[in-house]
Amino acid sequence: MFQMPTKYVFGKDSHKGIGELVKPYADKVLLVYGGGSIKRNGLYDDVVGSLRSQGVAYVELPGVQANPRYETVLAGIELVKKENVRLVLAVGGGSVIDSAKAIAMSVGTDDVWACFSAGAKLNAALPVATILTIPAAGSEVSPDAVISYKGRKLGFSSQNIRPVVSVVNPDIFVTLPKNQIANGVCDMMSHIFERYFTQTEHTDLIDSLAESTLKTIMRNALLLMRNPADYQAWTEVSLAGSFAHKGFLGCGRIQDWGCHAMEHELSAQDEKVAHGAGLAVLTPAWMRYVYSEKPKMFYQFAVNVMDVKADRDEEKVIRAGISKLECFFKALGQPSSLHELGFSMDAPLEEMAKKCTGEGFVGNFKPLYWQDVLAIYKASL
Amino acid sequence: MFQMPTKYVFGKDSHKGIGELVKPYADKVLLVYGGGSIKRNGLYDDVVGSLRSQGVAYVELPGVQANPRYETVLAGIELVKKENVRLVLAVGGGSVIDSAKAIAMSVGTDDVWACFSAGAKLNAALPVATILTIPAAGSEVSPDAVISYKGRKLGFSSQNIRPVVSVVNPDIFVTLPKNQIANGVCDMMSHIFERYFTQTEHTDLIDSLAESTLKTIMRNALLLMRNPADYQAWTEVSLAGSFAHKGFLGCGRIQDWGCHAMEHELSAQDEKVAHGAGLAVLTPAWMRYVYSEKPKMFYQFAVNVMDVKADRDEEKVIRAGISKLECFFKALGQPSSLHELGFSMDAPLEEMAKKCTGEGFVGNFKPLYWQDVLAIYKASL
Repeated sequence: MFQMPTKYVFGKDSHKGIGELVKPYADKVLLVYGGGSIKRNGLYDDVVGSLRSQGVAYVELPGVQANPRYETVLAGIELVKKENVRLVLAVGGGSVIDSAKAIAMSVGTDDVWACFSAGAKLNAALPVATILTIPAAGSEVSPDAVISYKGRKLGFSSQNIRPVVSVVNPDIFVTLPKNQIANGVCDMMSHIFERYFTQTEHTDLIDSLAESTLKTIMRNALLLMRNPADYQAWTEVSLAGSFAHKGFLGCGRIQDWGCHAMEHELSAQDEKVAHGAGLAVLTPAWMRYVYSEKPKMFYQFAVNVMDVKADRDEEKVIRAGISKLECFFKALGQPSSLHELGFSMDAPLEEMAKKCTGEGFVGNFKPLYWQDVLAIYKASL
Repeated sequence: MFQMPTKYVFGKDSHKGIGELVKPYADKVLLVYGGGSIKRNGLYDDVVGSLRSQGVAYVELPGVQANPRYETVLAGIELVKKENVRLVLAVGGGSVIDSAKAIAMSVGTDDVWACFSAGAKLNAALPVATILTIPAAGSEVSPDAVISYKGRKLGFSSQNIRPVVSVVNPDIFVTLPKNQIANGVCDMMSHIFERYFTQTEHTDLIDSLAESTLKTIMRNALLLMRNPADYQAWTEVSLAGSFAHKGFLGCGRIQDWGCHAMEHELSAQDEKVAHGAGLAVLTPAWMRYVYSEKPKMFYQFAVNVMDVKADRDEEKVIRAGISKLECFFKALGQPSSLHELGFSMDAPLEEMAKKCTGEGFVGNFKPLYWQDVLAIYKASL
């Protein structure tokens, strides 16, 4: 089943129409954002100006941090209740959007965290709208949210929290620093990898769409490393980042999501670890650990995405593909080991692996039990 | 702006859940279908069985023809009014679905045909659901409908008539005759061409997604010519047919739609002309007529889609690409001239060309005035 109900508005100045876009849903919104950068670069003024021009009132929740925390969500829920807000408008990256989604959930459950931690049912949510400031998480089009609380970083998914409106203006991204570009690129590529590597057979169309999207991201990411203000490269990368997580690249196939689960434990252990950087470290190690489960899939990846020359020696081609991916991550300035991420030999890797898998396993391409996760962590040291 | 609100359900036996899928919208539906084939192959029984099991009542409008006519639509509108129907359920190909959409429009306007012929405003529509029996028109995911009346074949577009639910089960297609497969394939490829060939610059991601989709369709269409019952090939072709017309391959670019406009005059002139066959004849002639407006786009097409070897002689590569496309259409058994479609030297081509463009032009890659359309018709004789 596929559905993409989000009204996705893309292009220069598109954020200036936000008032008109949210007006059909609400005459009062909760405006959620992170640090003060949107005040410095004029985005804040554009947004509140547009809301005012349409007679849409707003209350504010600033200060959402990376790896978003439940405490901030609770503050937002208070505001929703007190202020009779009808829509949550996120202006930010994945953390801000995910916080907005969690806040919106409060009208459909008494205990939002129980949805994340115990799969409690969500009956409804306030509509969520977004203005994206960092292409990465794909949360602007996805039904998912990830929140940190009590040492866990957990996800929740429901069509109720899929944004009703998302605005993507590549002009907003031209001032992003290179490390944020790199982290975003690794995150969106991982969203494709998690869907692409599958044991499902006969997936030609989606395979080729995923390969095209990956190549577009990689080509344009390197352009951004040379010139972070390259507007055209941003249009490609930001559109691809949304496409990566919109759902259609996962149609009709069993998805993996092992690397995301393993990375969440890194960020939960040390919140300074950026999600994209953690993924850049773990993904090649995961690939080497699992490719023998279905070598032809990794051969296809090496040839079609990494431009490795076809060869009868399947293993050679596969390993060359993984190495080229590592080189690409390095070209983005990403770390290539847990050491570089700040984990020492003494890190509680076994404990992290057990927290990651619980009693069961993560991933589907090859189910990873805690021993497997530990082996991948160790191979990444 | 991009949005794909249709709940798209794909896979074996998926049509058997139609009762559950439409139930949230309606307790009584109008069931629209074409000839009796759905009664012979058991599809009809599955559908009404599923509706009954969910307590959904239905009235029927059978007998919708290819190149759907407004007279049938009017009969459906009568039924909607008399029977207090809440949803229109189309079981068929593009003609049946488009008729269902036109019928659904009757709750939002007093004169449905005026929407097609004079751009009258549509305020609302009944929800439409579809079970696809021929992958071709993409109407199962599009906001468009095309209806024939008074010697014209005209289109209308509104988010109000986009299906709320569409069910695609490749198993339904394995008994289709080869000419219908070929016509469907040419139609869906044309939906991509109409978006792909653009004067808009910097469209890397969507270009590559379009190229991947075209290649997947062509590869699997040839498999179906050998074995029309190849289920896996049908999954690729039918999913690609929906993707072709879902809208995302048109994101951020000025689209063309000249070939569709020119073909509609062929089918309006002689309703025995299948839309796909008409497109197969006109598209290569159109390509030769317009490629000099932006040769690099046709060079890219030749190399990336038709696998022509890159060469410094741009024109040679472009012409080879168009010739290979013609060969592909021939391999599908399609005609390659208006003669083969039944048009003689005496056909009223000038009159058709003038009807096609009206006072203005069709197409955007190169605007085609009636003289241009006439030249393309003549080149296709």
